[in-house]
Amino acid sequence: MSFHNLLSQRTRHMGANAIREILKAVAQPGMISLAGGIPSVQSFPMTLLPELMERVLATYQTAALQYDLTEGFLPLRQALAVYLADKGIAVPAEEILITSGSQGVLDAAAKVMITPGDTVAVEAPTYLGALQAFNAYEPVYICLECDDDGVLPDHLSQVLQTRPIKFIYLVPNFQNPTGRTLSMERREAVAGILRETNALLIEDDPYGDLRYRGKHLPAIKTLAPDQVIYVSSLSKVFAPGLRIGFCHAPQPIRKWLVRTKQGVDLHTGTLNQALAAEYLRGGYLRRQLPIIRRLYRPKLTAMLSALANHFPPNFRWSHPQGGMFVWVQGPPEVAMESIYQKALACHTAFVPGQYFYPQPGMGHETMRLNFTMPGESEIDTAVGRLGKIFASTANGT
Amino acid sequence: MSFHNLLSQRTRHMGANAIREILKAVAQPGMISLAGGIPSVQSFPMTLLPELMERVLATYQTAALQYDLTEGFLPLRQALAVYLADKGIAVPAEEILITSGSQGVLDAAAKVMITPGDTVAVEAPTYLGALQAFNAYEPVYICLECDDDGVLPDHLSQVLQTRPIKFIYLVPNFQNPTGRTLSMERREAVAGILRETNALLIEDDPYGDLRYRGKHLPAIKTLAPDQVIYVSSLSKVFAPGLRIGFCHAPQPIRKWLVRTKQGVDLHTGTLNQALAAEYLRGGYLRRQLPIIRRLYRPKLTAMLSALANHFPPNFRWSHPQGGMFVWVQGPPEVAMESIYQKALACHTAFVPGQYFYPQPGMGHETMRLNFTMPGESEIDTAVGRLGKIFASTANGT
Repeated sequence: MSFHNLLSQRTRHMGANAIREILKAVAQPGMISLAGGIPSVQSFPMTLLPELMERVLATYQTAALQYDLTEGFLPLRQALAVYLADKGIAVPAEEILITSGSQGVLDAAAKVMITPGDTVAVEAPTYLGALQAFNAYEPVYICLECDDDGVLPDHLSQVLQTRPIKFIYLVPNFQNPTGRTLSMERREAVAGILRETNALLIEDDPYGDLRYRGKHLPAIKTLAPDQVIYVSSLSKVFAPGLRIGFCHAPQPIRKWLVRTKQGVDLHTGTLNQALAAEYLRGGYLRRQLPIIRRLYRPKLTAMLSALANHFPPNFRWSHPQGGMFVWVQGPPEVAMESIYQKALACHTAFVPGQYFYPQPGMGHETMRLNFTMPGESEIDTAVGRLGKIFASTANGT
Repeated sequence: MSFHNLLSQRTRHMGANAIREILKAVAQPGMISLAGGIPSVQSFPMTLLPELMERVLATYQTAALQYDLTEGFLPLRQALAVYLADKGIAVPAEEILITSGSQGVLDAAAKVMITPGDTVAVEAPTYLGALQAFNAYEPVYICLECDDDGVLPDHLSQVLQTRPIKFIYLVPNFQNPTGRTLSMERREAVAGILRETNALLIEDDPYGDLRYRGKHLPAIKTLAPDQVIYVSSLSKVFAPGLRIGFCHAPQPIRKWLVRTKQGVDLHTGTLNQALAAEYLRGGYLRRQLPIIRRLYRPKLTAMLSALANHFPPNFRWSHPQGGMFVWVQGPPEVAMESIYQKALACHTAFVPGQYFYPQPGMGHETMRLNFTMPGESEIDTAVGRLGKIFASTANGT
């Protein structure tokens, strides 16, 4: 029984998420995985859960299990308004939309804005999940030029002048996959360009709270509030299994995001939203954040040391101040896809960088390394194994 | 700052969900609402929750809060395989997909199959949420002829011969909004037609367990397993606020539903799925179902009595054997939209039937009445008020 004739045209643009496929492959015992974009389970506030559940049932009672507004559970939106105000993003609770992971915003925004053939501007490389959300709506991508400080404002400005762009998608803090952070000077330049050209930016900020070194930089949303859909998530600072994302979008996009979400899932789970509301309201997030940073900071240090110790001198890598990833660029003759196969045989996994590019043929010499899941000695072991593979490959063995 | 120029073409087809708008309007104190499609909070197993949470944390530990497979949390899929087998639907756990409410299946199926202009065959009236999910992908609808026993197989057969149909959407048990149930004879006829024409049916079954009278009828899925995406939900038998839907789809649709869901929300909340798994595995659902039926059965009886007592003799209404709704059809001169305004002034709400039709201009003389939310005496009071409005309107007062 074949139903291939029933598939829509858009399925041509919908590939599988390569990383989720890789994660299935690396779930073998003995494997050290630098592949995932997954928080350490040690970052989860496990012992809090019974208490949070008790507070939820006492405070919200049956409302925690009932259907709720598409816009989101009001106590959570109120708590997030306080959380965002602390970051300089002053928005009323009623304008915050809760989504099923930040993925829910990316899907809804693309659905609301992209007619097949429309252009979206992205960093290259960029977050794979964003590309996957957007691809279903059949956009054309234009890649923004970047360096170690993030996107180049001059190139953004030039792109916006040459063709209509539906939206720009950036991850300014500890970007996935590169770990790089957009400098303050560039944030101001980008905000200015957005205002001048009345362009719309999706600013995705899942890692902003995971800074281990250096000074917090304000979101572009604080500099050009009317031009930015600010997106974030509790996945990295509470628990990804709750699937709580949120955003603030300018009108009239906001109204359409809600309408779209009605058709997609009616609303995000009420119980999870209520648990998240109590996590924020009770001050637990504020207490958990330093714990999470103390957990990840030495892992980042371990990875940067291991790279310096084990990787060939003609490799370069990012030096992130936070987040979950280090990005490695080998010399042009390295093909990370084949290195990946050799690494698997040595019980070591990573994600070849090519998957993070919107167009094929780019980034074959790059790789993304995650440092939040493995322990520090595992990081050294895994990076050491990769270093050996590079050395033996360069020697032609 | 206007961004109207950024909206995609598909937004032309995306209206607001009229019922969710009505529900906001009727949340006033003193209102008796027959409008919602909402379970009574008395049906929720509130006292179980701390125990379920304890079992979840003991059994799954950190896995309950971590990212998980797009396909769904395996223990829940295993429990649902047992639950479905009891209904005669024998499918492996690995082929069951968990979604964020059954809405998640409807969105994904439409996304996977509908190219703008494709035809979808639906009952008229039909579930509004399905229309809203499908509309975003710009289908054309063809309305299947129905009577009190559901869809007419001869008309379905005729429709399938005259044009390509991407899929058929039916709610065979206690349909929303009519409350009617497809007869056994017609289920067999529909299954035969699906097999002969190799057509695909989305069989939406959220209410199947809520039968208060008569004999359980097997799902069409049991009669033509390869032709049916069977969809259901725990919203009516556990709690809607958990947003747990599920489906079994034939290959290759199944693969595409998973791929689509990756882009939309990565996966459904793990904690909620773990709670649902324990609800099923612990035998709690089996114990709760008779409680829910005992709660709703007298409400249905109360509504049917009240209609007989208070509504004019030239009105007719469905006599459901289960579910949540009774459908009322007035004489052609009745305009339920204006009755609705009068009813609101008398603190009584319902949903005018016209919203459940895929095309405008149909069903202006119909209404949907919900009986699960209000108490029995409230049902009598509300139906009495509506009866008075009909009587005074007929008298020209």
